[in-house]
Amino acid sequence: MAGNTFGQIFRLTTFGESHGKAIGGIIDGCPAGLEIDIEFIQHELDRRRPGQSSISSPRQEEDKVEFLSGIFEGKSTGAPIAFIIWNKDQKPEDYNQLKDLYRPSHADFTYDQKYGFRDYRGGGRSSARETASRVVGGAIAKLLLNQTKINITAYVTQVETVCLEKDYHSLDLGKIETSPVRCPDKEVSLKMEKLLEELKEKGDTTGGVIQCIITGVPAGLGEPVFDKLHAELGKAMLSINAVKGFDIGSGFSAAGMKGSAHNDIFKNKAGEITTATNFSGGIQGGISNGQDIHFRVAFKPVATLMTNQETIDKYGNLKAFTGKGRHDVCVVPRAVPIVEAMAALVIADYLLLAKVSRI
Amino acid sequence: MAGNTFGQIFRLTTFGESHGKAIGGIIDGCPAGLEIDIEFIQHELDRRRPGQSSISSPRQEEDKVEFLSGIFEGKSTGAPIAFIIWNKDQKPEDYNQLKDLYRPSHADFTYDQKYGFRDYRGGGRSSARETASRVVGGAIAKLLLNQTKINITAYVTQVETVCLEKDYHSLDLGKIETSPVRCPDKEVSLKMEKLLEELKEKGDTTGGVIQCIITGVPAGLGEPVFDKLHAELGKAMLSINAVKGFDIGSGFSAAGMKGSAHNDIFKNKAGEITTATNFSGGIQGGISNGQDIHFRVAFKPVATLMTNQETIDKYGNLKAFTGKGRHDVCVVPRAVPIVEAMAALVIADYLLLAKVSRI
Amino acid sequence: MAGNTFGQIFRLTTFGESHGKAIGGIIDGCPAGLEIDIEFIQHELDRRRPGQSSISSPRQEEDKVEFLSGIFEGKSTGAPIAFIIWNKDQKPEDYNQLKDLYRPSHADFTYDQKYGFRDYRGGGRSSARETASRVVGGAIAKLLLNQTKINITAYVTQVETVCLEKDYHSLDLGKIETSPVRCPDKEVSLKMEKLLEELKEKGDTTGGVIQCIITGVPAGLGEPVFDKLHAELGKAMLSINAVKGFDIGSGFSAAGMKGSAHNDIFKNKAGEITTATNFSGGIQGGISNGQDIHFRVAFKPVATLMTNQETIDKYGNLKAFTGKGRHDVCVVPRAVPIVEAMAALVIADYLLLAKVSRI
Amino acid sequence: MAGNTFGQIFRLTTFGESHGKAIGGIIDGCPAGLEIDIEFIQHELDRRRPGQSSISSPRQEEDKVEFLSGIFEGKSTGAPIAFIIWNKDQKPEDYNQLKDLYRPSHADFTYDQKYGFRDYRGGGRSSARETASRVVGGAIAKLLLNQTKINITAYVTQVETVCLEKDYHSLDLGKIETSPVRCPDKEVSLKMEKLLEELKEKGDTTGGVIQCIITGVPAGLGEPVFDKLHAELGKAMLSINAVKGFDIGSGFSAAGMKGSAHNDIFKNKAGEITTATNFSGGIQGGISNGQDIHFRVAFKPVATLMTNQETIDKYGNLKAFTGKGRHDVCVVPRAVPIVEAMAALVIADYLLLAKVSRI
Repeated sequence: MAGNTFGQIFRLTTFGESHGKAIGGIIDGCPAGLEIDIEFIQHELDRRRPGQSSISSPRQEEDKVEFLSGIFEGKSTGAPIAFIIWNKDQKPEDYNQLKDLYRPSHADFTYDQKYGFRDYRGGGRSSARETASRVVGGAIAKLLLNQTKINITAYVTQVETVCLEKDYHSLDLGKIETSPVRCPDKEVSLKMEKLLEELKEKGDTTGGVIQCIITGVPAGLGEPVFDKLHAELGKAMLSINAVKGFDIGSGFSAAGMKGSAHNDIFKNKAGEITTATNFSGGIQGGISNGQDIHFRVAFKPVATLMTNQETIDKYGNLKAFTGKGRHDVCVVPRAVPIVEAMAALVIADYLLLAKVSRI
Repeated sequence: MAGNTFGQIFRLTTFGESHGKAIGGIIDGCPAGLEIDIEFIQHELDRRRPGQSSISSPRQEEDKVEFLSGIFEGKSTGAPIAFIIWNKDQKPEDYNQLKDLYRPSHADFTYDQKYGFRDYRGGGRSSARETASRVVGGAIAKLLLNQTKINITAYVTQVETVCLEKDYHSLDLGKIETSPVRCPDKEVSLKMEKLLEELKEKGDTTGGVIQCIITGVPAGLGEPVFDKLHAELGKAMLSINAVKGFDIGSGFSAAGMKGSAHNDIFKNKAGEITTATNFSGGIQGGISNGQDIHFRVAFKPVATLMTNQETIDKYGNLKAFTGKGRHDVCVVPRAVPIVEAMAALVIADYLLLAKVSRI
Repeated sequence: MAGNTFGQIFRLTTFGESHGKAIGGIIDGCPAGLEIDIEFIQHELDRRRPGQSSISSPRQEEDKVEFLSGIFEGKSTGAPIAFIIWNKDQKPEDYNQLKDLYRPSHADFTYDQKYGFRDYRGGGRSSARETASRVVGGAIAKLLLNQTKINITAYVTQVETVCLEKDYHSLDLGKIETSPVRCPDKEVSLKMEKLLEELKEKGDTTGGVIQCIITGVPAGLGEPVFDKLHAELGKAMLSINAVKGFDIGSGFSAAGMKGSAHNDIFKNKAGEITTATNFSGGIQGGISNGQDIHFRVAFKPVATLMTNQETIDKYGNLKAFTGKGRHDVCVVPRAVPIVEAMAALVIADYLLLAKVSRI
Repeated sequence: MAGNTFGQIFRLTTFGESHGKAIGGIIDGCPAGLEIDIEFIQHELDRRRPGQSSISSPRQEEDKVEFLSGIFEGKSTGAPIAFIIWNKDQKPEDYNQLKDLYRPSHADFTYDQKYGFRDYRGGGRSSARETASRVVGGAIAKLLLNQTKINITAYVTQVETVCLEKDYHSLDLGKIETSPVRCPDKEVSLKMEKLLEELKEKGDTTGGVIQCIITGVPAGLGEPVFDKLHAELGKAMLSINAVKGFDIGSGFSAAGMKGSAHNDIFKNKAGEITTATNFSGGIQGGISNGQDIHFRVAFKPVATLMTNQETIDKYGNLKAFTGKGRHDVCVVPRAVPIVEAMAALVIADYLLLAKVSRI
């Protein structure tokens, strides 16, 4: 209700502010008997960590996840799995200048409007630091999906004006993690890096697009009419900080196509029903059809600039504001594991929901 | 859980298949004391009705809504409001050919995969006929929003290759309903109509884009971190049949912008805090900021073509399929009231949720 | 949220007022493929019907259930199952005297306080007529439970001062329906009938107790810590009109026992784990243990008397009030199928929930 | 869904096992701006602590609550409030004997049946230790209720055969906390203490009854038809470990009364509508009527005895089992703050729900 829980059966509730004591969460509804590979989870969390390259925020968050409950002898017990990540890098004094300020395109003003006041330290609850908890939840969801053959892979296809035009079938997705911007095409990756270095020098920022591919999803996942699989995926992605758009399969380009070109013709491939094309993005009528699910997520430019901006404070006074310290030039490289985590949470939840579809 | 309920406090549950006895729904959580203007609701339903022009389906559904409960002396009582729309135009024999067929880019195959069998008559539950119930629910939500100054207006900005490039500020939105394609610009509207006529002659179809503008939303609506206002709007839109994409404010184009150009600078306008631009689309950090909310919804081409298509049946046999009877060439003109209805359901729900944000 | 939906996966939402057009409901989450035996459902509804004997209300409600959706070729499709029961016996003029009156121990005053006004015709939404929809929902739940060996049987153990002291093991539960008060012991049944006849002559009413036995529940149903199986059964029962108490197994008498007498000792019965006694009522730690579930439900006396009572109206004026027409002397005989229905809804829901407990 | 969350708007999710690292929880939906009096919360927690007297468990849990998020400058921010209580008194070796054992009337067997295995250390998740988290959640709910004049007080009315027969109006509820068994009548308290000492010597245990009184609840709280206020209170109480029964107002005794004696006659008391009696227990039709809410909760005897009991292990082998260490003879004295906490959670939630009942 109050917005801090995601999922219906496999449910993640997160807590914590950017500069409070800790962030963390509770996963309720994880089936009992799942082996919890803590190294894998920590590895996922490390993928999100800032300071991985010169173009992301140099903040050195250790982000070590600690599990408090719900795991016994290495397996989930069916009880809620609570975890915590301590905030070690707190310097409250850094944030006094933010106390009354409404930073442009941040949530300072809207939190004040909604709640009457706010924890202004580093963005408080509205900080993207909260997404670390999502990555932990998503990592456990991935462990559940690993039980079947479901695989989730995301990568960067656009950074400002640099776009990766190739289709995912022609890319080596195994190379994503070798690229500092998480773009599997070496040439494009280099262009993106160069662009980001230039922006960094200017104190400016930009946005980008992440593509996500989910393979191995069995046909039959999705809860029409309101909880269609792609509707929930869309909500999951749009709930990530800085996301402004989501489309699936042919997406926005579908609007410009003819039905005769867009329809995915069914094929009988040695007894298995497949489709000749996949404009549907693996989902028809809100239910997975067994083909790859693929979608795009658009991120806006980082709102904190290293140059001077005009803004106002809560009293309406004109103020100048310049970002300080540790901020990304572009979030998409670090957002890749977050996109994957949210996708994993959705698919895990719908996999469980599908267990009660039939007698 | 099973996907037929939308909303948290103001909740719509719909039921019914395209060619069953009736469709309808229950609205639970409508506050007591709201005047229920049944004429207005019927009018909204009429806006969705097929057969309004030569380019939409000629099916003559009367679609008369009948209320069964929750209203007394013209006002909502706080009890669930049930309504029903009888299906009058049933001709089951029309659908025998569909019994075992998997129509391309329809939900026949996926419903079979999920539920083991399906009501194949006219698409059954997966038919867009279900959206009539959403329009009724949305109309009641609009009545609630009318209590404040909130207004929701949607219109068509793209039909295949014909695009309306003008910003909504330069359009006369009062003219939307005078256009058979619901495009407020006369010139563009004529082009869209012409295009649709041509496609109709060829038996082909296409997709399109709808733009939606919500004005008068107070600052403070939204439930971060997972139930951000735009995340719920996105889910609402993506749950509509044929929708493939959603973006808000600057949307996908944000990915190509610099932060210095994208940030919405706060202004003190005679004591009221506004923004100089509105790339945020009226929402920051998942909470409304008092500016206009504006978003786009992309629809794929209608899957039923009037030309011959190859497909298979449930036994994997190759089949030819040609659409018959009544089908739209493009859904966007009729989808306009559906987009508005879903937007109204979200805003009404979040308006109520906001009542419990503070002590 | 607004209170008209019951269940998590197998969900019943009801609508309708005592003297509106119709009552009914939607069952969402019924697994696909279940054979829907409409005769059985109608039979269950007939068991609840008034006018079955001289001691219950002579109102002749036909209460014929009509299904509108979610069933195809005799089976549930996985889509929402909507049903309707038309109100045929409306005589609004009967209720003008109730318009401003606050009847003692009725919900007139509290509905006004909550909603600002109320549908005063025959109690409106607060009338026990709503429970007919529960019986329909419960009947479908019973059909689901019939797939396993789960059986639910309720009967009357107390009417005012007449109590059935025998344990259910020593009763012939097959005789329940042959008793007009639904008490399986002939002698006690006759005493209850006599008592009710006497009360009827005096225009007075009384309460009673219903016992419910659920056999065949597999071990493992229940969702601790908050949604323990007996907690949900308790809520289900307490949501029935006129219920004032619920206890399970040893219930209130447990408070007066010693642990050494109360513990249910586990036994190995030819490889199957059972318990020597069943003070737990078939549930330990909120999870079924495979033994019979048995609980009691206490009902208060019917509030509408045929004698003169003093009360006030909404303006605070002193008024005299005498019940008219059709009212039961005691609700427990007719409440038996309602208790069973609510129990069936809970067990069906928890049976589905249990499907996602383990990997 | 998985049972570890309670409430709709004001929601508590708990985590943790008896002998894991920590227990704790997240409160989501607490309105922003509430002063969080941490001393008061710790005081409530201390009331539940074992070792307060010779008759309760001598386990010395420090049970210090630590808040991690959602509070800023002493007030709730509207973000989730996470808290943790570290488990300091872990001695895993104590529990090796329990590994395969199914203790009588404990949840060992049922957890194994549901989840396939269990954390057997001290009862794991099924331990009443979890209720400490409820007390923290309930304490914050009480802080919210303190904003109005709502007061919740519980006390012990029965320990095995010793009953407090007096009505609460004739008791000095201020004396509850001065009694080691939390019975406000000195004479009865002494009898209870004596009884418990005797049982302790014998290694036996017993059950009891707690009465709860809620004053100052405004008329209008409750969500009929399924989420009636007393139905939710009942569920809340039945979810507490060892509870076997709940009744409200006249409760089970209502079954033996006549309507003419049971009806609560409305009175106009200087313009305020009250009732002459309160058999309804402050709730009519599932909605509070402004009178005191009063209900009873029955607890079974503690299942762990200090004498030898026969039982079996998971392999069906006959085993002897004798409790060791720290266990209460009777839980009701310590359960008083837990009953209050659960009542506070319900009333806080319904107070918020009532904010959206009317336009």
